[in-house]
Amino acid sequence: MKEALDSRNDQSQYVRNCGMAARTASRIVAQASTRQKNEALLAMAQAIVAGQSRILEENRLDVAAGKQQGLADALLDRLELTPDRVASMVQGLQQVASLPDPVGEISELNRRPSGIEVGRMRVPLGVIGIIYESRPNVTADAGGLCLKSGNAAILRGGSEAIRSNRAIAGFLQEGLQVAGLPASVIQVFDNTDRTLVGELLGMSEFVDVIVPRGGRSLIERVSHESTIPVIKHLDGNCHVYVDSAANIDQAVAIAFNAKCRRYGICGAMETLLLAESVAEKVLQRLVPKYRAESVEVRGCERTRQLVPGAIAATEEDWGTEFLAPVLAVRVVDNLDQAIEHIDRYGSGHTDAIVTQDLEASRRFLREVDSSSVMVNASTQFADGFEYGLGAEIGISTDKLHARGPVGLEGLTTRKFIVLGAGSVRP
Amino acid sequence: MKEALDSRNDQSQYVRNCGMAARTASRIVAQASTRQKNEALLAMAQAIVAGQSRILEENRLDVAAGKQQGLADALLDRLELTPDRVASMVQGLQQVASLPDPVGEISELNRRPSGIEVGRMRVPLGVIGIIYESRPNVTADAGGLCLKSGNAAILRGGSEAIRSNRAIAGFLQEGLQVAGLPASVIQVFDNTDRTLVGELLGMSEFVDVIVPRGGRSLIERVSHESTIPVIKHLDGNCHVYVDSAANIDQAVAIAFNAKCRRYGICGAMETLLLAESVAEKVLQRLVPKYRAESVEVRGCERTRQLVPGAIAATEEDWGTEFLAPVLAVRVVDNLDQAIEHIDRYGSGHTDAIVTQDLEASRRFLREVDSSSVMVNASTQFADGFEYGLGAEIGISTDKLHARGPVGLEGLTTRKFIVLGAGSVRP
Repeated sequence: MKEALDSRNDQSQYVRNCGMAARTASRIVAQASTRQKNEALLAMAQAIVAGQSRILEENRLDVAAGKQQGLADALLDRLELTPDRVASMVQGLQQVASLPDPVGEISELNRRPSGIEVGRMRVPLGVIGIIYESRPNVTADAGGLCLKSGNAAILRGGSEAIRSNRAIAGFLQEGLQVAGLPASVIQVFDNTDRTLVGELLGMSEFVDVIVPRGGRSLIERVSHESTIPVIKHLDGNCHVYVDSAANIDQAVAIAFNAKCRRYGICGAMETLLLAESVAEKVLQRLVPKYRAESVEVRGCERTRQLVPGAIAATEEDWGTEFLAPVLAVRVVDNLDQAIEHIDRYGSGHTDAIVTQDLEASRRFLREVDSSSVMVNASTQFADGFEYGLGAEIGISTDKLHARGPVGLEGLTTRKFIVLGAGSVRP
Repeated sequence: MKEALDSRNDQSQYVRNCGMAARTASRIVAQASTRQKNEALLAMAQAIVAGQSRILEENRLDVAAGKQQGLADALLDRLELTPDRVASMVQGLQQVASLPDPVGEISELNRRPSGIEVGRMRVPLGVIGIIYESRPNVTADAGGLCLKSGNAAILRGGSEAIRSNRAIAGFLQEGLQVAGLPASVIQVFDNTDRTLVGELLGMSEFVDVIVPRGGRSLIERVSHESTIPVIKHLDGNCHVYVDSAANIDQAVAIAFNAKCRRYGICGAMETLLLAESVAEKVLQRLVPKYRAESVEVRGCERTRQLVPGAIAATEEDWGTEFLAPVLAVRVVDNLDQAIEHIDRYGSGHTDAIVTQDLEASRRFLREVDSSSVMVNASTQFADGFEYGLGAEIGISTDKLHARGPVGLEGLTTRKFIVLGAGSVRP
């Protein structure tokens, strides 16, 4: 009993030590020059290249242990590192080095009637806690983004990837030290006890924001427990609405790409809405393409009249993120009914309209309350790289602070700056 | 027992009904034109002018009841409405009508290599819950800001102001209806049961953000209980640092204004830091001015050698927001020690440097991690009107989403918009 308590206290102290070290490091990295941060990023990339065999070896041990514990194949696949996957970690770090530094940007500097000038300066958030599951590449990706945005990072990866993460973290810290930055700018929890996550989520004096990356259960647990603000990504129940004024070629291409390019990503279309006047034309061309890819169509009454053999969609289907070759299809009367459907069943992630009608496109852009709203484009474009953010730490489905793909800018905030000349307020 | 439960359920249902009505209204007001919102704001102002005697009469009843309940004088003062205070509510609404509408602004629209154009559109947050104490003018101020930013508001004022708030809310809703908007865009809780606040704070399906306005205990309670994101304002422990390269006239004017213009506001200076080389010159001129205003000086050792009769400052004094004619004074070695002091004891609200040295000013601006950082200006400028935001719903000491004075822009967020031409992702 006493030993258990001692161990509990030790672990608690371990997390607090990480927190304190991160807070101290955050003050230093916030003031680091762009040159210094880029030097660290490139040195990290170099260290990983040089240490690749070590990373792959540690990863093999993780994978072997995972197999022994009976991890599911999908998890094992995410856990496994290959030379290709290591190469893309390296490229990711190099790419982040090439992005513009958001820190220190001064904007909106205006002279006020009182004579003071008021503007805003972009500054780091401080300490960012990242909680993620099996993919060890997140260690390098998230660490690099936090560094470039001038933040310290505390990374807590899945216990199944602990050896891989430790090895990667070692090389990241090597890179930091080459550039003269403290190793504690990027810390990886070296302890897989799940209760430590709870400690981290309550440490608001040392951590400014938590970013969970993983499945829904992880994200819900983190949001529920955290007393620190969370930037989170819940469901991606995305819609494509084919308007009565759609170009049918575009509609077919977009609806096919939005579903079939990749099934398992959050920007994949899950429900196709069709204006009644074009439903038949579109389905005639689309359904054979879906069938060729073994996509299961679950339709409303009107859809089923047009698609013999389609399964009846249930109420639940409209609200489901399938992440699989399954598609719900509904024929709607018009744009209003499409927007209503998205409002009711959507998750506020990404929704698209296909139309040649300017006013319909303007209404859809204005009225659909999602983090990305698209006209004549596939929902699978919802991605930080595609948007020009360079890389993303995640896609936020929250409204406050960051909405949609979160890149470097989302890891910063703006403070006010005021310049006077001995100015006093009357 | 059963009756108590029934009443509990009724109240819970009352709050949920408010929430549902607000959610519905938020969809309508989000799409309202600028003209329609301004028409409503001006009609609200007009209704309040016409109904002034009614408001003052209800307010007299509130004040009388407050006196009977033995409310403190400070609270009674905040509760009381005068024709002047009503006039400034009216002017506030008219001023908000004159501000630019933030909703719908499209920015950063860029063409990407894939051919899609990606930009961002400013949109309302949705439903905003405001929880405040005795000042009834918040009802009109906050209601107006929420409307202009395209949000629906649920206002929960102090029970001591219930009659005043009901009367004001009636006129606000009259204005909404004149402009053809639903009255439920601005709802005031017509029930003073404190447990209802808890219901509101848990209703994340209907409320997008909570803004508490009031004393520290209210804000701590709200932050602690709320499962909805909170934009909050904690302490304003503000500093002025007089650098060795300061213009002494400016230093004296700013240090006097920052403390004495108003003691009770969050932007008031609470600790004065003086570079050793100028401490004597500054104190010689400042202390007599403070004494004339009965400001009590609590000094460090070195200060007390320069100011005979100064009380010794305790460790606790450095961390205290006095909001009173009390000032802590510390002599520091240099800029580094000043920044260290602010970092350790400050609350991240507003801090100023007085200096003629460019590099010192640049370092202070960069390195002090506060929501407002000032050069050669009084901390009492920390205010939405002075910053040109027009009006503020509060001053945020949080880092995420909004930092510093929160105006219309802080009540909105940005979504991504993507424009393609039948674009699919390879």
